[in-house]
Amino acid sequence: MALLVTNVRQLVTVRAGDARVKVGEAMQELGIIPDAAMVVEERILWVGPRAEAYSLRSAGLLQWEAEWDVGGRVVVPGFVDAHTHVVFSGSRVEEYSQRLRGATYAEIAAAGGGIMTTVHAVRAADEEELVRQASVLLWSALQHGTTTVEIKSGYGLTTADELKLLRVVRRLAQELPLRIVPTFMGAHAFPPEYRDRRSEYIELICQEMLPAVAAEGLAEYCDVFVDVGYFTPQEAERILRTAQDYGLRPRLHADELAPVGAAELAARVGAVSADHLLHVSDAGIAALRSAGTVAVLLPGTAYTLRLPYAPARRLIAAGIPVALATDCNPGSCFCENMQMVLSLACQCMGMLPEEALVAATLNGAAALERSHLLGSLEVGKYADFLVLRLQDVREMVYHFGVNHVAEVWIGGRCVWRAPV
Amino acid sequence: MALLVTNVRQLVTVRAGDARVKVGEAMQELGIIPDAAMVVEERILWVGPRAEAYSLRSAGLLQWEAEWDVGGRVVVPGFVDAHTHVVFSGSRVEEYSQRLRGATYAEIAAAGGGIMTTVHAVRAADEEELVRQASVLLWSALQHGTTTVEIKSGYGLTTADELKLLRVVRRLAQELPLRIVPTFMGAHAFPPEYRDRRSEYIELICQEMLPAVAAEGLAEYCDVFVDVGYFTPQEAERILRTAQDYGLRPRLHADELAPVGAAELAARVGAVSADHLLHVSDAGIAALRSAGTVAVLLPGTAYTLRLPYAPARRLIAAGIPVALATDCNPGSCFCENMQMVLSLACQCMGMLPEEALVAATLNGAAALERSHLLGSLEVGKYADFLVLRLQDVREMVYHFGVNHVAEVWIGGRCVWRAPV
Repeated sequence: MALLVTNVRQLVTVRAGDARVKVGEAMQELGIIPDAAMVVEERILWVGPRAEAYSLRSAGLLQWEAEWDVGGRVVVPGFVDAHTHVVFSGSRVEEYSQRLRGATYAEIAAAGGGIMTTVHAVRAADEEELVRQASVLLWSALQHGTTTVEIKSGYGLTTADELKLLRVVRRLAQELPLRIVPTFMGAHAFPPEYRDRRSEYIELICQEMLPAVAAEGLAEYCDVFVDVGYFTPQEAERILRTAQDYGLRPRLHADELAPVGAAELAARVGAVSADHLLHVSDAGIAALRSAGTVAVLLPGTAYTLRLPYAPARRLIAAGIPVALATDCNPGSCFCENMQMVLSLACQCMGMLPEEALVAATLNGAAALERSHLLGSLEVGKYADFLVLRLQDVREMVYHFGVNHVAEVWIGGRCVWRAPV
Repeated sequence: MALLVTNVRQLVTVRAGDARVKVGEAMQELGIIPDAAMVVEERILWVGPRAEAYSLRSAGLLQWEAEWDVGGRVVVPGFVDAHTHVVFSGSRVEEYSQRLRGATYAEIAAAGGGIMTTVHAVRAADEEELVRQASVLLWSALQHGTTTVEIKSGYGLTTADELKLLRVVRRLAQELPLRIVPTFMGAHAFPPEYRDRRSEYIELICQEMLPAVAAEGLAEYCDVFVDVGYFTPQEAERILRTAQDYGLRPRLHADELAPVGAAELAARVGAVSADHLLHVSDAGIAALRSAGTVAVLLPGTAYTLRLPYAPARRLIAAGIPVALATDCNPGSCFCENMQMVLSLACQCMGMLPEEALVAATLNGAAALERSHLLGSLEVGKYADFLVLRLQDVREMVYHFGVNHVAEVWIGGRCVWRAPV
């Protein structure tokens, strides 16, 4: 049944046309239609000025069965959060507190804390518990505007536990209204039992985990943490090439803690995205540009860990498509709210509000190879959009620290409305 | 009617005893009672372990008429936001956008924008409009945990318009459940019509505005923006001394943009608080310490303006009582959420979660001379508290960017509950 979504003060289309991603100055173009309307079923059938919708209907060229008045508010595409670790168990508030007292993320990891704290909790948890905890977070993400979310495994680090995590992701995708994209990340860290047998763990991933994940069709992507203290580019390449043989496409945690050449590797293996990039080198930037890799920036992590931010302006100036994501996880960034990420992107990385919105929608969708279907409000794409309690879309970052989302729509259906 | 608030996983009393404020290491002491309960009427009648409440009742030593089970959640004192400008009209999103493109706050002010943009809008607005806009913001502040809020005039800059603003503040205090503390700030900026007659504007404040404000009993405090491009310490001293003659106690916007000796002035005139302090000098710190002035830090403003943050750790180390507030205003910090301010205080100023909470409660109350009544959960104080959806109070900053408030209680009554 076609629905006219009408009385939209600003309809932020993020107009992309045939482009799958926006780079450079195009990231500032939001394609705003004032006093607009949109005809939707599961997909968008028509977008334009409100008056035109009625003219077309009078001329018999457009029709709808019902109208939904959004009350003169702003409509934007739903956020595509292309990098999260929301399926986990336990809390790391103690470690958070230690860090504020001066301990570094690397020191905590070296002492057996960090990711391993969560790994121990996840191994001890059953599927139900993991589904329950993740559901709460994902509902919160949805209420803050996320309509598509990527979720990584990587807190299991045994074949059984990685499969458990990915099965939880599959259940969440069935049970929640959000669109969920699963990524296998057995190479999130070396488990302590393999600390002195690194190559054996790599082979476990390649010979046991990847075949099992592929056999059950549990993941679209394979991610590797390429950094000092984690996986070397060489180790990562072995894993990602094997993943590709099993049909899992590569993405990377790249150069977060040090410039280890991870961006260069991302380009070399044809990764869909290179994420973090706090310490990306000039050579890494050049490589990403040549390969057309999406740079997924996660300013909430630099904020939490009190690290220097990724060079967003340099990446944009270099013509690299920049996306923004939460990195939501219990250690280095416990935040599922994409509006918060947009605020940090503007205030701490110098992005413009328009660039941040493009990065959180169209370019996020590109980082998940879905920008032909998601990330902008154009005919033929899915009707995933937010109604915001704003007069001007730029107020989303101007007025920060609060949730501006009034309604969340996915596939042409309203899946959440804020209480009045 | 006495009510037992019970099943509190952590009752964060912020125990102060006879102290009106916490300094130094005491700022890390939250006085947490695990598995606690609290007997409240308008004030707190009893606080302690849950089991003890029942023992005392059995012994006939404590009684209550009803029980309120908070479901094993965390209870903290309500936030006291000691510095806001929430009564205004219009939006400054355009100026916000210009700043992200490189314009400075000073450049925008020099071009006639900045505070003057809001002054023009406020002069054109009537009381109803101002009440309506401020009510929306204050309800949002309340829902994010603020139970007491200071509000300044300063966007009128004529006698009539300053009185209009303060009458709006009085109406808000009557109509809303929050506790509201009014401050007169005719010395927020020089209005353009007095640009070349500074001393005449000072005299207008001293001879016309202050007597009128005092005659109607519209304000408790007088604030002056002492900085480059605003009021000199000498001008401010004339205003604040006159204000004191009319019974308005002094507080200051001090050394936000440059070290102009405003902290020293605050100490000299016996100001209740010196606020901002991004550029406070060593002499200023020494002066504040001697005078016992509360330093009200506003990290949301440094965040928004992309300025260096106030030296929170140096101020705490010097034994100065540090409070945190939003500075909520349409120009330099459009944020009414104290939880966001706590996050910025920890991540960007290096405060500990415990210090931030003390700064936002007891020390905020001290900055409004109300810490004998507010800011901690102790017998005799008002029952202003929050129920938080947390297992551990430190998670309030660990899990950032979302609202953790489930219930807001003021004077022993629940004034807001989050929808489930």
